[in-house]
Amino acid sequence: MTKKELVMSLYKIGAIKFGKFTFKSGIVSPNYVDLRVLVSYPKVLSEVGKSYVPLLKKLSFDRMAGIPYAALPIIAAVGFHNHKPWMYTRKEAKNYGTKKLIEGEYKKGDKVVLIDDVITTGLSKIEVLKPLESEGLKIKDIVVYIDREQGGREELEAKGYRLHSVVRLSEVFKLLHQEGILSDTQLQENLNSLKTRKSL
Amino acid sequence: MTKKELVMSLYKIGAIKFGKFTFKSGIVSPNYVDLRVLVSYPKVLSEVGKSYVPLLKKLSFDRMAGIPYAALPIIAAVGFHNHKPWMYTRKEAKNYGTKKLIEGEYKKGDKVVLIDDVITTGLSKIEVLKPLESEGLKIKDIVVYIDREQGGREELEAKGYRLHSVVRLSEVFKLLHQEGILSDTQLQENLNSLKTRKSL
Repeated sequence: MTKKELVMSLYKIGAIKFGKFTFKSGIVSPNYVDLRVLVSYPKVLSEVGKSYVPLLKKLSFDRMAGIPYAALPIIAAVGFHNHKPWMYTRKEAKNYGTKKLIEGEYKKGDKVVLIDDVITTGLSKIEVLKPLESEGLKIKDIVVYIDREQGGREELEAKGYRLHSVVRLSEVFKLLHQEGILSDTQLQENLNSLKTRKSL
Repeated sequence: MTKKELVMSLYKIGAIKFGKFTFKSGIVSPNYVDLRVLVSYPKVLSEVGKSYVPLLKKLSFDRMAGIPYAALPIIAAVGFHNHKPWMYTRKEAKNYGTKKLIEGEYKKGDKVVLIDDVITTGLSKIEVLKPLESEGLKIKDIVVYIDREQGGREELEAKGYRLHSVVRLSEVFKLLHQEGILSDTQLQENLNSLKTRKSL
């Protein structure tokens, strides 16, 4: 499946929507991205997983790590295609004490690549790395499907991490415009929304 | 991969262990089963997912449902093989209020099959069905990889559910005995432990 075909599939299943969306922060957006619906479409989920593989082939790592919940189906899909071992953090570990914070095998010093669905800000991404790094895992690379182009890449690079994305949100808009899903006006409106939010 | 080959794989990766294990309840067991390690062995995870497919083919359902965390990698693996839509409950939804309790699409009245890793008691299984049933989902069938034969099957049947398992724990012991992993004495000790715990 080409990048464009996969973006079209994501649009068709409602993982990418256009309209008028008001976020909790009060920001109004002409688009909405949510890959959690993928579990209802296992074939598309599998294709999303497959799309990470070429990026991962270029990186050197021992294990992949995912964060609940959105990234767990995706990291499972990646593992299904590249057969690399993975692990995940548990959200509720703090409440239990004796329960493990991380599920899956690893050893101190293992090179780990973080697999996530999207990136908005870099700061929230750095936050989720903490439990992994405090276990002695070495994380340099973060791979996402969509880079929302809200400054996350630059924030991560400033902290010494590298972001890799299968597709950028502006590219998603352009591909959907090519397919006639977005009109010229809508394309411009959506591209502008990226610039506006980045400067907030 | 045959049933025996998969059980051998699970033994080799440490998902099934023999020795002396003391559980929180104080019960001492000569065996320990934990499928959470599967994420470190994606090929074995994929085989575990595939092993559910023949059982699921005999059932009538619209969607599959999984419970975090142990069952999530497994239900993803099942979905890659049978391409059926799935959903999962979120553990922490209560703390947030506005967050969704269930991720993935569904509609009231959908027939849902619960996918889980193992069954010990039936009561804990019925507990996890509540959020799904309170959304109007119809659940009749529960499919697990290992039936630990601790009375769970009977408890579920008494409540009108049906349990389906790929393999029973006594069968696991017998297969590993055939392969020379368990001695005659160990086989008997492990089979006896099932009977003892069932009668507690």
